[in-house]
Amino acid sequence: MFFHNSKLQYEVRIDKPNPLFAKMLQQAIGGIEGEIRVAMQYFFQAMGARGDSKYRDLLIATATEELSHIEFLGHAVALNLEDAPLSMQEEAAKDPVVGAILGGMNPRHILSSGLSAMPVNSNGVPFDMSHVYATGNIGADMMANVTAEAGGRVLASRLYSMTDDAGMKDMLAFLIARDTMHQQQWLAVVEELGGMEGTLPIPNSTPQDHEATKHSYVFLNTSLDKEAATGRWTSGKSLDGRSEFSVAPAEPMGQEPSLGKARKGSGAQTQQM
Amino acid sequence: MFFHNSKLQYEVRIDKPNPLFAKMLQQAIGGIEGEIRVAMQYFFQAMGARGDSKYRDLLIATATEELSHIEFLGHAVALNLEDAPLSMQEEAAKDPVVGAILGGMNPRHILSSGLSAMPVNSNGVPFDMSHVYATGNIGADMMANVTAEAGGRVLASRLYSMTDDAGMKDMLAFLIARDTMHQQQWLAVVEELGGMEGTLPIPNSTPQDHEATKHSYVFLNTSLDKEAATGRWTSGKSLDGRSEFSVAPAEPMGQEPSLGKARKGSGAQTQQM
Amino acid sequence: MFFHNSKLQYEVRIDKPNPLFAKMLQQAIGGIEGEIRVAMQYFFQAMGARGDSKYRDLLIATATEELSHIEFLGHAVALNLEDAPLSMQEEAAKDPVVGAILGGMNPRHILSSGLSAMPVNSNGVPFDMSHVYATGNIGADMMANVTAEAGGRVLASRLYSMTDDAGMKDMLAFLIARDTMHQQQWLAVVEELGGMEGTLPIPNSTPQDHEATKHSYVFLNTSLDKEAATGRWTSGKSLDGRSEFSVAPAEPMGQEPSLGKARKGSGAQTQQM
Amino acid sequence: MFFHNSKLQYEVRIDKPNPLFAKMLQQAIGGIEGEIRVAMQYFFQAMGARGDSKYRDLLIATATEELSHIEFLGHAVALNLEDAPLSMQEEAAKDPVVGAILGGMNPRHILSSGLSAMPVNSNGVPFDMSHVYATGNIGADMMANVTAEAGGRVLASRLYSMTDDAGMKDMLAFLIARDTMHQQQWLAVVEELGGMEGTLPIPNSTPQDHEATKHSYVFLNTSLDKEAATGRWTSGKSLDGRSEFSVAPAEPMGQEPSLGKARKGSGAQTQQM
Amino acid sequence: MFFHNSKLQYEVRIDKPNPLFAKMLQQAIGGIEGEIRVAMQYFFQAMGARGDSKYRDLLIATATEELSHIEFLGHAVALNLEDAPLSMQEEAAKDPVVGAILGGMNPRHILSSGLSAMPVNSNGVPFDMSHVYATGNIGADMMANVTAEAGGRVLASRLYSMTDDAGMKDMLAFLIARDTMHQQQWLAVVEELGGMEGTLPIPNSTPQDHEATKHSYVFLNTSLDKEAATGRWTSGKSLDGRSEFSVAPAEPMGQEPSLGKARKGSGAQTQQM
Amino acid sequence: MFFHNSKLQYEVRIDKPNPLFAKMLQQAIGGIEGEIRVAMQYFFQAMGARGDSKYRDLLIATATEELSHIEFLGHAVALNLEDAPLSMQEEAAKDPVVGAILGGMNPRHILSSGLSAMPVNSNGVPFDMSHVYATGNIGADMMANVTAEAGGRVLASRLYSMTDDAGMKDMLAFLIARDTMHQQQWLAVVEELGGMEGTLPIPNSTPQDHEATKHSYVFLNTSLDKEAATGRWTSGKSLDGRSEFSVAPAEPMGQEPSLGKARKGSGAQTQQM
Repeated sequence: MFFHNSKLQYEVRIDKPNPLFAKMLQQAIGGIEGEIRVAMQYFFQAMGARGDSKYRDLLIATATEELSHIEFLGHAVALNLEDAPLSMQEEAAKDPVVGAILGGMNPRHILSSGLSAMPVNSNGVPFDMSHVYATGNIGADMMANVTAEAGGRVLASRLYSMTDDAGMKDMLAFLIARDTMHQQQWLAVVEELGGMEGTLPIPNSTPQDHEATKHSYVFLNTSLDKEAATGRWTSGKSLDGRSEFSVAPAEPMGQEPSLGKARKGSGAQTQQM
Repeated sequence: MFFHNSKLQYEVRIDKPNPLFAKMLQQAIGGIEGEIRVAMQYFFQAMGARGDSKYRDLLIATATEELSHIEFLGHAVALNLEDAPLSMQEEAAKDPVVGAILGGMNPRHILSSGLSAMPVNSNGVPFDMSHVYATGNIGADMMANVTAEAGGRVLASRLYSMTDDAGMKDMLAFLIARDTMHQQQWLAVVEELGGMEGTLPIPNSTPQDHEATKHSYVFLNTSLDKEAATGRWTSGKSLDGRSEFSVAPAEPMGQEPSLGKARKGSGAQTQQM
Repeated sequence: MFFHNSKLQYEVRIDKPNPLFAKMLQQAIGGIEGEIRVAMQYFFQAMGARGDSKYRDLLIATATEELSHIEFLGHAVALNLEDAPLSMQEEAAKDPVVGAILGGMNPRHILSSGLSAMPVNSNGVPFDMSHVYATGNIGADMMANVTAEAGGRVLASRLYSMTDDAGMKDMLAFLIARDTMHQQQWLAVVEELGGMEGTLPIPNSTPQDHEATKHSYVFLNTSLDKEAATGRWTSGKSLDGRSEFSVAPAEPMGQEPSLGKARKGSGAQTQQM
Repeated sequence: MFFHNSKLQYEVRIDKPNPLFAKMLQQAIGGIEGEIRVAMQYFFQAMGARGDSKYRDLLIATATEELSHIEFLGHAVALNLEDAPLSMQEEAAKDPVVGAILGGMNPRHILSSGLSAMPVNSNGVPFDMSHVYATGNIGADMMANVTAEAGGRVLASRLYSMTDDAGMKDMLAFLIARDTMHQQQWLAVVEELGGMEGTLPIPNSTPQDHEATKHSYVFLNTSLDKEAATGRWTSGKSLDGRSEFSVAPAEPMGQEPSLGKARKGSGAQTQQM
Repeated sequence: MFFHNSKLQYEVRIDKPNPLFAKMLQQAIGGIEGEIRVAMQYFFQAMGARGDSKYRDLLIATATEELSHIEFLGHAVALNLEDAPLSMQEEAAKDPVVGAILGGMNPRHILSSGLSAMPVNSNGVPFDMSHVYATGNIGADMMANVTAEAGGRVLASRLYSMTDDAGMKDMLAFLIARDTMHQQQWLAVVEELGGMEGTLPIPNSTPQDHEATKHSYVFLNTSLDKEAATGRWTSGKSLDGRSEFSVAPAEPMGQEPSLGKARKGSGAQTQQM
Repeated sequence: MFFHNSKLQYEVRIDKPNPLFAKMLQQAIGGIEGEIRVAMQYFFQAMGARGDSKYRDLLIATATEELSHIEFLGHAVALNLEDAPLSMQEEAAKDPVVGAILGGMNPRHILSSGLSAMPVNSNGVPFDMSHVYATGNIGADMMANVTAEAGGRVLASRLYSMTDDAGMKDMLAFLIARDTMHQQQWLAVVEELGGMEGTLPIPNSTPQDHEATKHSYVFLNTSLDKEAATGRWTSGKSLDGRSEFSVAPAEPMGQEPSLGKARKGSGAQTQQM
């Protein structure tokens, strides 16, 4: 069950409101790299967690933290919109700076939200929950979480570079730090579960006879004009310790597909029947 | 530039067509764990690849392979639909097996595609390209790829268990094997780039002074009634080798947010002004 | 800032797991009538709240409660999936009850989530955040909230009727009760702000000269063959106390639209130019 | 059955075409606050209307009017695009006003629609029909309709403030007026059905023993550091006249959730089993 | 401007309600082959029509007819839901026919719409307006319209075969007929505009020097193992009368792409810089 | 099965990178008129092709070519982003040209993709696979393909006009040419199948007695104030050679719909029962 404290997890200060930066910050709220996604992803993973309950606790604890990130980012968006123009008066349109703001900001920050944050990305596309990756497999889930936090820290680092506002830089430095920790903690779970050898291949519960293992450690080169790119993946022991990597040209092993004629009543043209 | 051979990468045999299994196989084509996603994800990552060109080559080679996976899975869906009922005749509705098939299969396999594969998941929801994760950061991208292949192998393993058809089991065993290799190869890139110490935190190019590092290695416990879940993430050296893990209770560090009164002309109620 | 207690807000008991009911319960999690929607809607309204801060407090308090509703509903979905079939063995397919379950349940509850809740509705369509209605206008927002809670209580009442499970009925009776209160509380805000006369028309800050008031209280009948449906909306004092209702036949007041010829370079056919 | 008159419901005049305003007007066509939504919402409610047929007539009459609103707004968008730049010539890019227009307008107004209206919002996101709220419950539907019209009038008021064009102001003043009436008429239905006491809780047909009524009139405070926000919702007679409001701290009443170990064949990691 | 007559365009009779068929009929309302799509597509094309105004009149006339198709199909869905089960009582679950109905029907027809039509397809996916094809080019638009009507008639034919209900067959025979006419009328516009020679290539206003015409009439074979499929497209006069068809093997004409190193501050890994 | 050559199908040169044009080019990658759509549409049509196998070969050959179009367009987007600003420094914001670029470009080209192409349109909306039209009917599919190529050539022509960059013009001239050929080849299939008389109505396999043929060749005028627009569609032989066109006023032939009272337990208001 959730509870709330009226103060933000981190302080939000803005020296100079900037509606263009408000639009960009939306990516950190409603983008696939954003905080709604991680909050909901960890929440649903927690609700489906099976096995040692400490992983459920870990997931829900961080899900809860991410909800607080949405909250202070939402406040940052609103504060950046404080002075946004509410009309397109002739003078404004002729002032190129105001013109660029009006053209560049998210119009729905004026028209739809009344100068506050929305659950959309920096293109104004609403977040959709298909991005909540929660498989019931702790290995797959941890990788999805590292992915989310890697994308999140890439985004926060780019936002940090975009702005000159000291308050915004301070807040983003906090987010960058938390994304560092969250990358670490999900990988720490993998390490605790035995590292790559204990984890791979995911799922590690698939019976060996469900797998055509002669295809499991060979890099297939589909290039017509270049040798296979060689690296750690083309030779040496496989990362799960079960085999050796090799490389081979890709080749068709199957038939030429044919579905024959269309069935009567299937809505095809007579020429197909 | 792409080319095509008329034969499938892998043979598709079906002993007994099953429209319910056709619906389930759609998850491997148009689901977030499916082949359209990985084909497009590796393709877009390749198009944005910067740095050593061998990673671009690796990405495009496997993107090309995944296109071939779509192709044989698509054929498998069509073959599973061979005998699907095209009418709801009284007799059929009274036969509980036919009734269950009519109720359980994807009606659009009859109504929209004429008994062939569609770019949708097993709920009939079309794949959308927001799931193509391609950040321009090779670390984040490799994690996204492992996530995709982990989800893919979890899915293929579940599909393998669902079916009794020998041909389908054979095809899925091949997919399970390829997903093993693909998990390995993306993690092999990470290893080649220096493993966790060389890679973390992602992005590793963020200047140290852009990060509030005192928050970077501490697990925050937001639970009101339980101690922090302890593990590899609460003590010991951090995975990037830069610090030590610790644990702390989560606490608000920010202000109580307040946006004050609504601006004139902002479309609020007068009581808010 | 958010915190979490490890216990659920309400107890979840299930006498007999039912995968079909798991699918239906998803509507209460990820449907437009569901709990993700209200949690996020109240949260974003709170973040954009301006004027008396007590409304922000009210919104965030209930947003927090709704997060807890997601949590116990998610647990209910997982418990209903406990015995779901994981294979399509011949015997099962011939048992019409198992066949109906396999055909009727959400296949992604097996294939994608590993027998746990997902942020999707009962058709498997993921929730998308465009349904978070938060306008910056407290009148419009309260109406959106009553709408959400009305839809929610309609849904919970229908789910209550669908199930025979005593545990599920108990949980749903709690939800029905909370939806009663939430309908009440949002309407109580409207009453506190002056009721209909104090609130309508929304927004009540629009200057009178921005409105063509001769069209503001007349019901337009667009029917060609029936008299206007008469009722409270066709005569008597308007609900905002500013005028009298009347009724009139709808009639075109504008021009026949014409865009003339296509511009050169606009990509039209030459015949349009 | 529908018919059409070649003239617009309201006159559309534009003194000076403005492609940025064309983009903003799209919100009134294809936004969640827009006319496609209300036209389709009232249409589908009418098709599902049960009980006194006059409500069906009322709904379809206004659905028909809203179709006419789409039509004149669509014309307004096209007229605002009359002079939009069709090339990015060097001179233009150097003229900051033209540059701002090219950067700020919807590029698909050039690339996709050939200078005419599209069924998208002001971010270019297509309208999707999940926003058609039609529950089969007249109380819930009326609230959804007031919400839609409140959002619509907030939007129209904001658009009115954004523009200096006399023709556009005239057209928007008409829309503002119609939204006033439509708010009124849906609330008038509620009044006719007995007002709050006759309507609440929605649905009012839920048997009393399906509801855990001890939770039905109590405001739950989930705040850890603040007293409950008090108001009309914390004391006094409830709005449905059935009880008294009270307030209580939120507390967990349920168990700590646990799903135990993963089932064999469910695709989890062995460590979860 | 639109008006409405209270009677349906075509009579709807149902001998035996069938909730499974109600689900299937939804494809004709909210599917990409359905009536919402054509109504809105012709409406938006009409609003953007330039050139001879009779095409605008033609488009709006048929848009209006399609609105009436939505209406009678919506009624047909509701009538098919008349006897749908509203509970999952033990007896019902044990009756395989009722079980198949409960598993096979759209659960939202019970949970969300209260036994009436929704603007969704037969998978329950809401229609989204991105499928409104309206380009401002009358040639492209007519082709889009033929496509829509071809898909619509394929769908109606399949629905006709699915049902045994005489009333439903009668209604679908009407739809099949109207789709015949609508295919004809859009192609008749093409014929009137000069047929293929007068229309192709679309747009026919593109200046000849904007096209690399040596690539305009050659079929490129990308197959590695098969000769080009020969037919009308590989030899003989081109359909626009401007050239001769030929065939050639596809070959790369461009460079190997390379983006070089990542820029500083672009959020890449240091290894990419 | 697919293979890849490391060189692009066509050369990509850019004289002067332009982030605004990068945004516009996205329409040709991830728009409904773009290359992902045609690649996937032809691919799925090929996988469902029945009848003469040469049409499958033709479809897959061109699907393969379209994948190569995505590739060179993706490279063009990345090259146009080469010099995009990575920060919002005060100086930049004051330079109106830089300001317009920052306001006008897709912010996710900086924030999400790290200066490379994305599978989104020019509004940043991700492509979704519902636009893959593949019906199993070769007539309907060919029309869908002509539609796609017509929209594609309209788009490419508009992009050609937008840019001054010689390299971009050269690449777009190639695309314009290929779209010419692809329009031709799909219409050539129709001609080979017997032209309009052999193809219409689609599907031509629908038994005559499934169609209410008295409604099949009559244009219905739904206008209240204008005569029917006359043309090739109102008189003369029908295009399929089976009948004569005529015209008639549209009239209701059906009943006034009524659903009567709501069922008990259906979640309606008591006033509806």
